[in-house]
Amino acid sequence: MNAEPLSPDAATVVAALREELSELHQELVRYDLVVWTGGNVSGRVPGQDLFVIKPSGVPYERLTPQSMVVCDLEGRVVDGGGLKPSSDTAAHAYVYRHMPEVGGIVHTHSTYACAWAARGEPVPCVLTAMADEFGAEIPVGPFAVIGDDSIGRGIVETLTGHRSPAVLMRNHGPFTIGPGPRAAVKAAVMCEDVARSVHISHQLGRPLPIDPEAVDRLHHRYRHAYGQPGTSAQ
Amino acid sequence: MNAEPLSPDAATVVAALREELSELHQELVRYDLVVWTGGNVSGRVPGQDLFVIKPSGVPYERLTPQSMVVCDLEGRVVDGGGLKPSSDTAAHAYVYRHMPEVGGIVHTHSTYACAWAARGEPVPCVLTAMADEFGAEIPVGPFAVIGDDSIGRGIVETLTGHRSPAVLMRNHGPFTIGPGPRAAVKAAVMCEDVARSVHISHQLGRPLPIDPEAVDRLHHRYRHAYGQPGTSAQ
Amino acid sequence: MNAEPLSPDAATVVAALREELSELHQELVRYDLVVWTGGNVSGRVPGQDLFVIKPSGVPYERLTPQSMVVCDLEGRVVDGGGLKPSSDTAAHAYVYRHMPEVGGIVHTHSTYACAWAARGEPVPCVLTAMADEFGAEIPVGPFAVIGDDSIGRGIVETLTGHRSPAVLMRNHGPFTIGPGPRAAVKAAVMCEDVARSVHISHQLGRPLPIDPEAVDRLHHRYRHAYGQPGTSAQ
Amino acid sequence: MNAEPLSPDAATVVAALREELSELHQELVRYDLVVWTGGNVSGRVPGQDLFVIKPSGVPYERLTPQSMVVCDLEGRVVDGGGLKPSSDTAAHAYVYRHMPEVGGIVHTHSTYACAWAARGEPVPCVLTAMADEFGAEIPVGPFAVIGDDSIGRGIVETLTGHRSPAVLMRNHGPFTIGPGPRAAVKAAVMCEDVARSVHISHQLGRPLPIDPEAVDRLHHRYRHAYGQPGTSAQ
Repeated sequence: MNAEPLSPDAATVVAALREELSELHQELVRYDLVVWTGGNVSGRVPGQDLFVIKPSGVPYERLTPQSMVVCDLEGRVVDGGGLKPSSDTAAHAYVYRHMPEVGGIVHTHSTYACAWAARGEPVPCVLTAMADEFGAEIPVGPFAVIGDDSIGRGIVETLTGHRSPAVLMRNHGPFTIGPGPRAAVKAAVMCEDVARSVHISHQLGRPLPIDPEAVDRLHHRYRHAYGQPGTSAQ
Repeated sequence: MNAEPLSPDAATVVAALREELSELHQELVRYDLVVWTGGNVSGRVPGQDLFVIKPSGVPYERLTPQSMVVCDLEGRVVDGGGLKPSSDTAAHAYVYRHMPEVGGIVHTHSTYACAWAARGEPVPCVLTAMADEFGAEIPVGPFAVIGDDSIGRGIVETLTGHRSPAVLMRNHGPFTIGPGPRAAVKAAVMCEDVARSVHISHQLGRPLPIDPEAVDRLHHRYRHAYGQPGTSAQ
Repeated sequence: MNAEPLSPDAATVVAALREELSELHQELVRYDLVVWTGGNVSGRVPGQDLFVIKPSGVPYERLTPQSMVVCDLEGRVVDGGGLKPSSDTAAHAYVYRHMPEVGGIVHTHSTYACAWAARGEPVPCVLTAMADEFGAEIPVGPFAVIGDDSIGRGIVETLTGHRSPAVLMRNHGPFTIGPGPRAAVKAAVMCEDVARSVHISHQLGRPLPIDPEAVDRLHHRYRHAYGQPGTSAQ
Repeated sequence: MNAEPLSPDAATVVAALREELSELHQELVRYDLVVWTGGNVSGRVPGQDLFVIKPSGVPYERLTPQSMVVCDLEGRVVDGGGLKPSSDTAAHAYVYRHMPEVGGIVHTHSTYACAWAARGEPVPCVLTAMADEFGAEIPVGPFAVIGDDSIGRGIVETLTGHRSPAVLMRNHGPFTIGPGPRAAVKAAVMCEDVARSVHISHQLGRPLPIDPEAVDRLHHRYRHAYGQPGTSAQ
């Protein structure tokens, strides 16, 4: 709270990020990934040791750019306009501190991802769309209780060196990362989509495996050739 | 019907509650917890032996603050504007009479909660979001038929001394309670959400249990630290 | 087509019914009971040997009161404004001819009802909401192919003397009846709702039976005491 | 890119097709067949060796007639307004080259169709609505990786001589064809609808088979007698 004021340049960047995060939270609603006030999106402030995150317990229809909370990388509020940040702030902060390539993080309790997470089972990579976006199974992270660094540590340990931008925290739900918040939201949407399709496929038998070499090829191509130039498969 | 007129203060409180209940009923629609005219929300009039409840058999899109029905704690209509109250009024009245801490009640036939209720099985607490909101399994109440006090008695007997604000009445569906109607609606939304996720998780195997001590810690923290000050995790 | 013009009174009744049917078709969309141009609602013209039904193959968003088609009880077009009636017209006509108490009919391919119908299994009455509306299991009718009276005959034979206003035609889907088209739409909505809840309940075990005497009591009460006076549990 | 300019007549046809495709893509969203930027619709330009297709990686809410990309039958961009065409363009081009009767193609990753595709199992024809639209089971095509002609070849080899306008490409998802893009979109909608109903039916047992002769009769009648004259069961 006793933070120095932002430079004019940083203030402009933060204002744009507040706007982007406010809109991206509506995608969580649109894709049915959240109920009531659950779930959150954050984004790193480029060039600053700061990130912006959803306030705690505020309904989605009342979220505005102004209601987003600016925190430092220890999770302390820098500019909250009187609002407390998401109760998952410590986990986001931990990830930003330990994964400098991460510019956006999303957490939801989306249904099918939670169903796999409750059993502690990874989602096997049996669809080409999953090979594209995740390049591998979606892995499971450890059981960890809110209140210290254990959730953040579990995310970092599981995703470091893994192609998947999503981890299913055991008995909890998915966290997704990306170079920016929009990519992390996309990963959250795709995570639920493939968790659902693969679950349903398993209900009547065994999905056929995809050859690992084909998974590699699909993932490489998707990362480098999909979408319009400059949009990075987001 | 031969009730005394409300004092001016009580009339203001009732008017605000009518407004709140009219809006809260739309949340049942938004979260797909009800079809046609099924389901209902009620709220206790603070400081009065009265509660306000949905009229019977009126479509959700025609509910207005004026169409809500004011009843006394025996379930008799005090101010109905010519409309009969919900056919579940006796059950709501029983709960308000016997659980003074309850300020709001919701009843739905939401799909997954009904699926557990039809088998008479509680929903086990295998997700951290469930530990947060329910602090335990969601219990099953007895089979009871509309028309006397048996539904209300079943709710009160099951929820008294239980952390869960939700009970699955056998072969019937969920009733949820809260300090006010908004908290009870939240519990109804969360009840269906976790009933669905845990059901789906069970379809492909056994969810892993959560250590009871961790359930306790999560529930305590959620009750006391979540959300903005003064909003009580609603 | 060579029908006599309607009397002024009948014309007023038909105009109101066209309006009602146009609106009721939107309920099929709203409750996700239909896709593309599938499904249809019809209503009998009171006091006339006529009924009004959806045109064939017209998208729901283009249905208007004017696009509805008036037929006689043999299914011949009396006033179609150039449009052909639903391909299920013969089945509706047969029911109106043989069940004078029926004033409205609905047909859909709603997902869970079709799933039971494809196995030829009735939906057992294991929820109080089902006892209320159906008073019994939802029965299965014979396999019958469009093109002659066999669908209509199957509906009439199955529903005559049965409490249920819904029949699942084998490998086909549900038909529902009611004293008017709105009641038949409600039965179609409730049919899918309970077919879904009971299906999901069965996925993890056996729903508990409801005592037949309790089913009787619930059904009787619902028929006579639910809703506002004069609305007949619709 | 070094293509000759379109004749004025062809330009008018292309403009109308851009408009139609822009609207048809919204049907994919409305029927929940796609998430994020996945899925695509294309339409052949009548009388030209050209087709029009969705741009790659552009969100559905930003698709306009102008953003659609015109390609030749080798999949080379003829008029893209600076946008790259869908990454599935080579597959669409292959189909248009080898199936002259095809005027529209749709690809999605719709949930239930993908669930069957991941197991490499065809959807059996156990519903009359499926006999109507598909006239047979929905077949499975080979596993094929994006990047050469193998997806297109798999579609053509599977659907040539088959009544079904839909193929489930193994571990990938459905492609549907039609005389025009609207018919192909309808097939995509119906494909997911029956894949879902038949999946759900299988969850609790075995759907009853439909006599092949009845399938033939239903399919023939639907192709020739459904809908308003001139609309070809679309």
